[in-house]
Amino acid sequence: MIECVALSGGVGGAKLALGLSKAMDPASLLIVANTGDDFDHLGLRICPDIDTVSYTLGDLANPELGWGRRDESWSFMETLKTLGGEAWFNLGDRDLALHVERTRRLQAGNTLSVVTTDMAARFGIASTIVPMSDDDVRTIVDTPGGPLAFQHYFVRERCEPKVTGFRFAGASDARPSPAFRGAFEGRDPAMVIICPSNPFISIDPILAVSGVRRMLEASRAPVIAISPIVGGKAIKGPTAKMMDELGMPATALEVAKHYTGLIDGFVLDEADREVAGAVRDLGLGVLVTNTVMKSLDDRVSLAREVIAFSQQVSEK
Amino acid sequence: MIECVALSGGVGGAKLALGLSKAMDPASLLIVANTGDDFDHLGLRICPDIDTVSYTLGDLANPELGWGRRDESWSFMETLKTLGGEAWFNLGDRDLALHVERTRRLQAGNTLSVVTTDMAARFGIASTIVPMSDDDVRTIVDTPGGPLAFQHYFVRERCEPKVTGFRFAGASDARPSPAFRGAFEGRDPAMVIICPSNPFISIDPILAVSGVRRMLEASRAPVIAISPIVGGKAIKGPTAKMMDELGMPATALEVAKHYTGLIDGFVLDEADREVAGAVRDLGLGVLVTNTVMKSLDDRVSLAREVIAFSQQVSEK
Repeated sequence: MIECVALSGGVGGAKLALGLSKAMDPASLLIVANTGDDFDHLGLRICPDIDTVSYTLGDLANPELGWGRRDESWSFMETLKTLGGEAWFNLGDRDLALHVERTRRLQAGNTLSVVTTDMAARFGIASTIVPMSDDDVRTIVDTPGGPLAFQHYFVRERCEPKVTGFRFAGASDARPSPAFRGAFEGRDPAMVIICPSNPFISIDPILAVSGVRRMLEASRAPVIAISPIVGGKAIKGPTAKMMDELGMPATALEVAKHYTGLIDGFVLDEADREVAGAVRDLGLGVLVTNTVMKSLDDRVSLAREVIAFSQQVSEK
Repeated sequence: MIECVALSGGVGGAKLALGLSKAMDPASLLIVANTGDDFDHLGLRICPDIDTVSYTLGDLANPELGWGRRDESWSFMETLKTLGGEAWFNLGDRDLALHVERTRRLQAGNTLSVVTTDMAARFGIASTIVPMSDDDVRTIVDTPGGPLAFQHYFVRERCEPKVTGFRFAGASDARPSPAFRGAFEGRDPAMVIICPSNPFISIDPILAVSGVRRMLEASRAPVIAISPIVGGKAIKGPTAKMMDELGMPATALEVAKHYTGLIDGFVLDEADREVAGAVRDLGLGVLVTNTVMKSLDDRVSLAREVIAFSQQVSEK
C-alpha cells in the first residue's frame, strides 16, 4: 500500500527520495520521476531522471560526477569520438547497457513503467519507481534564439541561453502512469512530497500531465514541497538562473508562490528563516530546518522531518 | 584505379586482405566483404565481416580473441547481463561504438558503403573496404530442426546443428555495391582474389548477389581462389564440418570443384600437394605454397605469391 508519493527530478530529488526510502517502509514509497527530460539519442531512449533516482536508490550512483553510475568506464565514448559520432552527451559503458536494454524492451512493446520497475527490482530497490507517464512528454525550453529541446538546452548548450518559458509537448495528451494513478485510487496516500527539484523543468512537467493536478487536488493527502532554493541559490542546477531570467526573485518564497494552490506545506532551509512568515501568509504550513543534504544521515534526517511535518499539516 | 578486387569473409579472408594491402599499392586494393552475416541485435546493425576486415587492416583487431577490437573493455556486456539483456552475442565497449554510430548513420539515410568507407578512412586504412551490397542479404542456414538466422546458428548455437543447405535471403533483389560494380566498369581490374574464407557462408553470399557472377565471368581479370581447407581441416571455423554434413569430402580439391566455372586459378597448401594434379585436371592453374598465415610476414608473403600467380594465370 502506497503511503507516500514523492515527485522527483534528478539529483536533488533523488537525495530526498533515498532518505524517504530509509525513513519509512520502503515498499510504501512510490517515486514518480519526471520524464520531460527524456530523449532519443544515438538511437537509444535515455531517461535521465528515472536513472538518477534508480542509481541513487540502488546505491549505484557515481559519487564524483553527480550523474551516471559508479565504477564506470568510458571506452564507448572515447571510441565514438574517434568515429565522428555525436559526443556532446556523455554515456558511460555501464550506463549504456541500461539505455540499450530499455530501448530494446520499449521497442518490444513494454511500457516505460514496466521497464523501469523491472530495472529497479534488479537493482535491489524495494520502493517503486515509475515515470510520470508512459506517454512521451518532452520539455521544450523557449529562448530568445528559439525553442530548444531540453537536453540541447541543458547539456549541449550548458544552460547558457536565457530562458523565456517552458512547454511540455505531449503533456495534455499524456496520462499519468498506472502506478501513479493507482496510488490515488481507493484510499489516498498519507502524503505527497514534492522533492527539492527544479520547479520549472523537473516538477512542472509532472504537474502538466493531464489529470495530475486534479488528482493531487482531489486527494486528501497533504502536499508538501521542499525548497530547492537555499539562501537565494540553487543547491545544484539552473533553478536560480532561470528564476532571474523569468523576472522572479530567486528566493524560496517565490518557489512557495509558484506552488500555491497545490501545496499544503512548504519546507524552508534555516538560511531562509526570514521568509517563513511570508510563506505562512500564503496559507501554507511551514517547516524550517536544514535542507542541505550532504551525507546519507542528512537525507534520512530531512526525510523524517518532512514525514512528521506532513502529519502535522494533515491534522490541521 | 582498382587493380585487385578481393572477396572476403571474416578472419581468414582479412589476413590475406591485410597481406595484399602490404604487397601492392594499398589504394589499388578493393576489399568486398560478405554481409550475409550482418544482423540487427539490441537495435544495432552489426556487420561482423566488414568489422573484422576493417579492424584487421586498421591494426585494431584483438589478437587474443580473433574477433573484436584490441584494448577492449567489457563493462557494457557485464552490466547488460545483470539487467537481463540478451547476452549470447558478446560486444566490447569499443566495438559497440562502431555499431551504434553505424546504426545512427544508416538510420539517417547513409548507405552501408558510405558508412564503411568513412570508418575505414578514420581507421587510417588506405585500401577501400565495401560491403558486397548496400541492400540487405541475410544468410539462412537450413538444418534438420528448421532454418536458422546465421548468427543464431553461428554464435548462439555455436555451429552445432547439422547443416543441410544455405539460402541468401534478398540476394536476388540486391545489387552489388557501387564500388564493387565500379571496379568492373570500363577497365577491368588486374585480378580478383577469393580469400581463404568459408565458401558456403562467406563467399557464396557475395556470389549470390544479383549480377556478381556475371560481372566476374564477363571480366578478363583472372579469378584466383585460395583454399580455406588445409590437410582436410579448416584453419578456423566450421568449413570442414559443413562439408562433412553436406556429404562432400572435406578437401581442398572439393573447394576447387565448388568454384569451378568461376575461377581460373587455385592456391593449395603444401599439405595438399597430392591433389594439385586433380585440381589441374579441372582446367585450373595451380599454385602450391604455404597458405597458413601465422605471422604478418606469412600474410605478405602469401599475398605476393598470389599476385604473381594471378599474373601467370592471366598470361596463359
